[in-house]
Amino acid sequence: MKRVLVTGASGFIGRAALAPLAARGFEVHAVSRRPPRDAGAGVTWHAHDLLAAGEPARVVERVRPTHLLHLAWYAVPGKYWTAPENVDWVAASAALARAFAEHGGRRFVGAGTCAEYAPAAGNCDERATPLAPATLYGTCKHATRIVIESLAAGRFSFAWGRIFFLYGPHEHESRLVPGVVRALLAGREALCTAGTQVRDFMHVEDVAAAFAALVDSEVEGAVNIASGEPVALADVVRTIARQLDAEPLVRLGARPIPAGELPSITAATARLRDEVGWGHGRSLESGLAETIEWWRAGARE
Amino acid sequence: MKRVLVTGASGFIGRAALAPLAARGFEVHAVSRRPPRDAGAGVTWHAHDLLAAGEPARVVERVRPTHLLHLAWYAVPGKYWTAPENVDWVAASAALARAFAEHGGRRFVGAGTCAEYAPAAGNCDERATPLAPATLYGTCKHATRIVIESLAAGRFSFAWGRIFFLYGPHEHESRLVPGVVRALLAGREALCTAGTQVRDFMHVEDVAAAFAALVDSEVEGAVNIASGEPVALADVVRTIARQLDAEPLVRLGARPIPAGELPSITAATARLRDEVGWGHGRSLESGLAETIEWWRAGARE
Repeated sequence: MKRVLVTGASGFIGRAALAPLAARGFEVHAVSRRPPRDAGAGVTWHAHDLLAAGEPARVVERVRPTHLLHLAWYAVPGKYWTAPENVDWVAASAALARAFAEHGGRRFVGAGTCAEYAPAAGNCDERATPLAPATLYGTCKHATRIVIESLAAGRFSFAWGRIFFLYGPHEHESRLVPGVVRALLAGREALCTAGTQVRDFMHVEDVAAAFAALVDSEVEGAVNIASGEPVALADVVRTIARQLDAEPLVRLGARPIPAGELPSITAATARLRDEVGWGHGRSLESGLAETIEWWRAGARE
Repeated sequence: MKRVLVTGASGFIGRAALAPLAARGFEVHAVSRRPPRDAGAGVTWHAHDLLAAGEPARVVERVRPTHLLHLAWYAVPGKYWTAPENVDWVAASAALARAFAEHGGRRFVGAGTCAEYAPAAGNCDERATPLAPATLYGTCKHATRIVIESLAAGRFSFAWGRIFFLYGPHEHESRLVPGVVRALLAGREALCTAGTQVRDFMHVEDVAAAFAALVDSEVEGAVNIASGEPVALADVVRTIARQLDAEPLVRLGARPIPAGELPSITAATARLRDEVGWGHGRSLESGLAETIEWWRAGARE
């Protein structure tokens, strides 16, 4: 029997991870402060606030999962880099891992971030790139990883998926892809930076499917969850505009690149591809096309 | 007004830290699961279990300290290196720091360990020696430090005292100095390893006084709390035996040196001496003499 507990299950990645886990034969238990009304077939929802005292242990005790996919974290755009809530999530994650060990859990997979790597590290490689987070968010993710990994030794199997840049349905409206899509769908100009920053983008459903594959594998340690196909932000914006036939509305260079933005953040993906065996993600072209359709169908403007 | 909250206040170091803090003009609040009956003048005790859900925030809210000296941790000899309780203390420490920030605390000092440094690092220097803890204990201390230090930035002043090896009154009977003292006082043989391991030893009351000085300073970051006077364990044992006039009872080499014991763990102490301005500790000779007297007076055997 494989029973997985997914935290942050109503979040951006979490909601997309439930179906791929079920498809892999897991009995899926989802925890969220606010389970959705349309719960979806084959998923058992549990309403818990993991930041409330004693709740991480309580939900683990109730579900007794063999596997745990821990995606819950503070994620308010613009605020999450420095918010003190990051520290609360270190505590909640530690409590979750402790309870998981206590109740005989077999495999714990957590969600990390490219912000754990040293800034300007170049292509981020799980085994070679130094870890030197420069933000409270990156530091708290890093601390969570080392604590759970050290606890895991001899107790349970542990992997840590490091997320890079993602896009897709349900992304917060204030972020790049939704911002550009919604402006162009509405016939407004999209005011962008020059977009020279190079990033690794991955569709959220591919991120979620890669996490499901990681949970279902025996791979241990850090694994970049990324496409391995770096792209300049300007090309992301141009691709959206071309698909919407709205290129004249794009104003690259209309905004300054924020201070501190790194010119390039890219990912080695050999571990995900060769060890986890996951590598069939969407192209950026088709992922953006799906995302545009989602926003169009939702008639958000 | 300077009001300090001391956690782990009935512990080995904590009990010795209260008087030096009071002497520096602090209003001293002490928290412990089991406050002592003879509470001592000028100290306000609070009975809290910091591992119970919600308690770290509760005690901070009640006391509203300007300064916090966080000494509480899991410390059962022989077990603390690998005990899962280390993870609980990461969570409790994070909660404590969060509440401290929330209530306008000004300066937080935590207790770290030489086990945060890379094994075989040579002389441990706060600014130069790599951090690479090899145990769950060292990893959890390290994680606690980076989380609180990152939270502190722009919010409160933060220092982290790294403890090396200590001895003195109230030390657990199973440890080296009490073990040898008690054996020799009872006229029994003291069966020891060859004692070639070199360590930095400091009397617990000096450790506590150094922490009080650190709390009362503005020094930020990691500071080794150590004597800066390396000594071979064999010389510690011989000094005790000489003072007790019991040299024939000492059997150096009667036990094997445990696997994994490092040949040398010593500390750079320039930060403590020059920046904190603390450097008037006991000699090993007089510290051991005091310790022997304490055991003798206690008539523990």
